[in-house]
Amino acid sequence: MAGKIEERIRELGLELPSPLQLPPGVDVPLAMVRIVGTRVLVSGHGPQETDGSIAQPLGQVGKELTLEEGIEAARKVALAMTGTLQRELGDLDRIKSWVKVFGMVNSAPDFNGQTPVINGFSNQIIEIFGRESGLATRSAVGMANLPFSIPVEVEAELELYE
Amino acid sequence: MAGKIEERIRELGLELPSPLQLPPGVDVPLAMVRIVGTRVLVSGHGPQETDGSIAQPLGQVGKELTLEEGIEAARKVALAMTGTLQRELGDLDRIKSWVKVFGMVNSAPDFNGQTPVINGFSNQIIEIFGRESGLATRSAVGMANLPFSIPVEVEAELELYE
Amino acid sequence: MAGKIEERIRELGLELPSPLQLPPGVDVPLAMVRIVGTRVLVSGHGPQETDGSIAQPLGQVGKELTLEEGIEAARKVALAMTGTLQRELGDLDRIKSWVKVFGMVNSAPDFNGQTPVINGFSNQIIEIFGRESGLATRSAVGMANLPFSIPVEVEAELELYE
Repeated sequence: MAGKIEERIRELGLELPSPLQLPPGVDVPLAMVRIVGTRVLVSGHGPQETDGSIAQPLGQVGKELTLEEGIEAARKVALAMTGTLQRELGDLDRIKSWVKVFGMVNSAPDFNGQTPVINGFSNQIIEIFGRESGLATRSAVGMANLPFSIPVEVEAELELYE
Repeated sequence: MAGKIEERIRELGLELPSPLQLPPGVDVPLAMVRIVGTRVLVSGHGPQETDGSIAQPLGQVGKELTLEEGIEAARKVALAMTGTLQRELGDLDRIKSWVKVFGMVNSAPDFNGQTPVINGFSNQIIEIFGRESGLATRSAVGMANLPFSIPVEVEAELELYE
Repeated sequence: MAGKIEERIRELGLELPSPLQLPPGVDVPLAMVRIVGTRVLVSGHGPQETDGSIAQPLGQVGKELTLEEGIEAARKVALAMTGTLQRELGDLDRIKSWVKVFGMVNSAPDFNGQTPVINGFSNQIIEIFGRESGLATRSAVGMANLPFSIPVEVEAELELYE
């Protein structure tokens, strides 16, 4: 029987992507998630297609990507991270709240719209998890570049119910 | 009756700014602070004027701003964050220590003085809260850009007395 | 009597550097480590020579440094951080696990190999502490610049045994 959050994801017509598929030969000696007591730490995630591959387009927002494409990329990061959490936690209803979101935008030198881009992430999380749970502390900042030239990367911390 | 830290702020002749006033139409789906047990997580803050508006000048340190203007911007971030903590905690004397500071400097490509800039933040916090409480772990790093082209953004974690 | 991890470091023929030696006049009002319960927070570390001085070469990976030099710099950051932990904790065997690694690469504008660079850090940590303990959540990202133009900076969180 599916939980409430999974039900909500289905009602919204959203699909969580498969596990991240990296290009052949790429080694990533890391844990996607670490659980310490009721804390859940989540590695940096980029935008993924539903098959788990790195989503296109790649590049800097304000150069290769428009603002709107940046927002859409950030929304895809929210779905990728939710997919990871579902696999690692088993049940998304274990999540009490999103505590901290660090949103990084691969930014053209003169692009200063990191806030609306990372809103693409935050609004998707709030749509799925609700405002009380999804309203995290946040920074939205501009990076010189990101792995594989992904346009957005987000890392997060969540809290589980005891 | 004001607490010890508020007394100290008054003695120093400092003024904590009003809540952040963003330009019209800017949506920020985030929590300025999340409290989890004795942990206090604080969203990224930029420099504010005392009326809560985003402080001038804007731009990159080493380009639009001199080193000294960057230091002053970081000092204003410390006051803005202390103002947020006062409103969210009610009493600044609840703070046991500053645990972690992540200081981000909007940096011209050849600017590598992130340490002295973020010292503007750290020294102001230490002046208000004392060395034992204010001496946090820290990174001071150079960003490609920041929202609204603010020159400095800092996020932090603090610990409350039980 | 040396602990197991220190024994392992000796077996691997590795040497932990002396405390960080900054250029004269540089003030750093921060704590290298903060311990809160079983949490250990660690300030951003750069690559150091064994005498504690900032390691050469300096600059951006993809410009002043090759990919291989970036990987080697990241490996040196792992040794510098392990040295700090040894001094602050007294015994490295107190460490249960590496929980979170935030890996920042001083990146030329078109350099997107942050993953292999920060693998230099992660693989060195895993070699010393083992895979179960050393496999942390991680982000590997590209910065516009870093203090003193160091090529890599990493901050981390660890968990101690109770």
